Amino acid sequence: MSSGRPRVVIVGAGFGGLAAARSLRHAAVDVLVVDKHNYHLFQPLLYQVASALLDPSEIAYPVRAALRRTGNADFRLARVDAVAVEARTVHTDAGDISYDYLVVAAGSVNNFFGVGSVEERAHGLKALEEALSLRNHLLQAAERAAWAEDESERQRLLTVVLVGAGPTGVELSGAISELVHLVLRKDFPRLDLSRMRIVLLEAGDDVLPAFAPRLRRAALRTLQSKGVEVRLHAAVSAANDEGVVLSSGEEIPTSTIVWTAGVRGAPLAASLGVPLNRQGRVAVTDTLQLPQHPEVFVIGDLAELHQDGAPLPMLAAVAMQQGHHVATTIAGSLSGVQPRPFRYRDKGIMATIGRNSAVAQIGPLRFTGFVGWVMWLGIHLILLVGFRSKVIALFNWAWDYFFYDRPVRLIARPERLEATDASHTPHPPER
Amino acid sequence: MSSGRPRVVIVGAGFGGLAAARSLRHAAVDVLVVDKHNYHLFQPLLYQVASALLDPSEIAYPVRAALRRTGNADFRLARVDAVAVEARTVHTDAGDISYDYLVVAAGSVNNFFGVGSVEERAHGLKALEEALSLRNHLLQAAERAAWAEDESERQRLLTVVLVGAGPTGVELSGAISELVHLVLRKDFPRLDLSRMRIVLLEAGDDVLPAFAPRLRRAALRTLQSKGVEVRLHAAVSAANDEGVVLSSGEEIPTSTIVWTAGVRGAPLAASLGVPLNRQGRVAVTDTLQLPQHPEVFVIGDLAELHQDGAPLPMLAAVAMQQGHHVATTIAGSLSGVQPRPFRYRDKGIMATIGRNSAVAQIGPLRFTGFVGWVMWLGIHLILLVGFRSKVIALFNWAWDYFFYDRPVRLIARPERLEATDASHTPHPPER
Repeated sequence: MSSGRPRVVIVGAGFGGLAAARSLRHAAVDVLVVDKHNYHLFQPLLYQVASALLDPSEIAYPVRAALRRTGNADFRLARVDAVAVEARTVHTDAGDISYDYLVVAAGSVNNFFGVGSVEERAHGLKALEEALSLRNHLLQAAERAAWAEDESERQRLLTVVLVGAGPTGVELSGAISELVHLVLRKDFPRLDLSRMRIVLLEAGDDVLPAFAPRLRRAALRTLQSKGVEVRLHAAVSAANDEGVVLSSGEEIPTSTIVWTAGVRGAPLAASLGVPLNRQGRVAVTDTLQLPQHPEVFVIGDLAELHQDGAPLPMLAAVAMQQGHHVATTIAGSLSGVQPRPFRYRDKGIMATIGRNSAVAQIGPLRFTGFVGWVMWLGIHLILLVGFRSKVIALFNWAWDYFFYDRPVRLIARPERLEATDASHTPHPPER
Repeated sequence: MSSGRPRVVIVGAGFGGLAAARSLRHAAVDVLVVDKHNYHLFQPLLYQVASALLDPSEIAYPVRAALRRTGNADFRLARVDAVAVEARTVHTDAGDISYDYLVVAAGSVNNFFGVGSVEERAHGLKALEEALSLRNHLLQAAERAAWAEDESERQRLLTVVLVGAGPTGVELSGAISELVHLVLRKDFPRLDLSRMRIVLLEAGDDVLPAFAPRLRRAALRTLQSKGVEVRLHAAVSAANDEGVVLSSGEEIPTSTIVWTAGVRGAPLAASLGVPLNRQGRVAVTDTLQLPQHPEVFVIGDLAELHQDGAPLPMLAAVAMQQGHHVATTIAGSLSGVQPRPFRYRDKGIMATIGRNSAVAQIGPLRFTGFVGWVMWLGIHLILLVGFRSKVIALFNWAWDYFFYDRPVRLIARPERLEATDASHTPHPPER
């Protein structure tokens, strides 16, 4: 990598970072993508791993494979801890890396709004590891419920509480409902699964607030038809070993709390030396740069940019368009071209609520029910990275659709955890 | 389960335990299968998960799904810690379970022959968790090697040492060779993978000692053609932070030690109150019963039974036939039929060494090379539990075969480990 060409370091191999790296493939620069995982994650389908429909490898794709045709890009497996903007260096757990241009695409993390008792007990759904943990937890709760002798303990094990009725909360509660009614019912013939409660709590007025009112109503009806208890104006104030406590004082006994109520910018942003908004996002220029450091770009969930009076949403489509935009800006700057402001072209939003039902709004168009679901299926398959993922995901969906089965319901975990640091001391096995 | 019918408790959902449970489906008994995992594992293909070819769900199948058509069988997720033969009770981490008949099919565990320094550092390959750990470790070693600045450290990261040239060691070393040469070479274009060393150590005279001499020679040639360094008469005496130490005093620097040199009976056997042989196996009667407790059966890897002057091998086929046999014995005993001695019908043995090559001996027949590989492929696909597994495994194999790609190379692990005990206290997340 000592070619003498400018080095572009991209922090994060999500939608934004990968788009930037790929769009730089013809530029006279060396690109280095740094991520703490060796895979790109198709986050919109994480809930399908959590609900045991998809295998991890169907929604995750090795970064190196994704960059194979990008001849000027390399990958480094490392966790970036801080950026030293004056020294043009990023500090990682595998050493320092210097840059000429930096693209910070570090994404977002769960935001528990300071409620520590919830943070300690809730499952998030931002990372593959969290989805696998939730899958293991849900299946284990059913195993325990099958043999619980105490009536109230069994009910507690059969209660799942999801906090936050945005797309993730809505999609996951629909998927868990189907896991229970279509699959677990067959696996646990002696367990009364009509006692299963799936409670979706939303502090605001409605589910899916970003969607049009007609679509919200359709989503609510579909959730209710699947047995999901939707509770609006219900805010969680705390959690304890018995369950969750609402701000009204009401307690809901549960062994499973899933947090989908909010995210904030990745903590890395704090080291950039610029003010952050309340969600920990970085206020960037309309060219996606830091005001004092035009060689530093921030894109995706971590960037706060207003367009038409509102902040851009945290969506894969926004991150990808921004990644492409900064690549164009960097390539242009090599020949003295001035940066142009970024403008998001809205591709629409959609959410699925189990088999056969989704809501989608694309420009002036609105889709619900089966038509929405077919739209959703097609668009996600097209977006999934890699042909193989598409084929296997399609096969799993088709299987699920025709046989009412969920293929992946293993409680599995590696015996030995390995750090991603550069230490070469083998860890002792856990026995 | 309080039907008044005799209760058969089966410890272990491996090949033996599942065969016993299924063969009891028409008997007037209640069957309870107990296992610490909620899945049956197709152990012969574990090495394919370790070498990143297959996903866990392709070789593991939920026990409850496997027992769906066995109406008189139930499942309990629990770790069996001891058997109290006088009290006819098994002690588990989820409480005590009493039995009228007991089938102990607890299998085997890694045997490090008391060499603690190896046990602390080596990867075993008996459990799904171990295969996932090894996969993560191999991929991480390549990532570290790609950026190692010290020459000898890079070589250490690029050296894999496998101990024991039985079927698992032979199959895994062949698979790792192909992972390196067919896949990692594309992912790491800047890393000199010709420096990669795969060393297969065998203390005895030859690879695959259970096979005919002609097949051993064929296997050895194939391994060598794939770049595997096979070292015979090489015993490991210790391991340290730099690598392994042979009994000759020679040291081989390596960051990856894989132990496939031996197994012993599961520790549970110690509680049965009978003498164990050096491998921790239980000497059973020729009817697979304990001499003093005919209501207790021991089958599979844990049972030691001689036939034609030699102990029966630890093979899935032996365990399955024994599971069927004890089911017949138990069903017969309900109507006073005397137990009959067990006799193993040899189905042959086979081992594959990467793409297109395997050795197989079936009765008087011997197969090598591509013909052996096709036999191996067909037989394993037929044996894989569940139609879906077959289809996906076939798809992955076909993909690998035509595109020289390994689909599953994610370094993934659940963020939060959960115990399988019956405690209902949520564990704090590891952050």
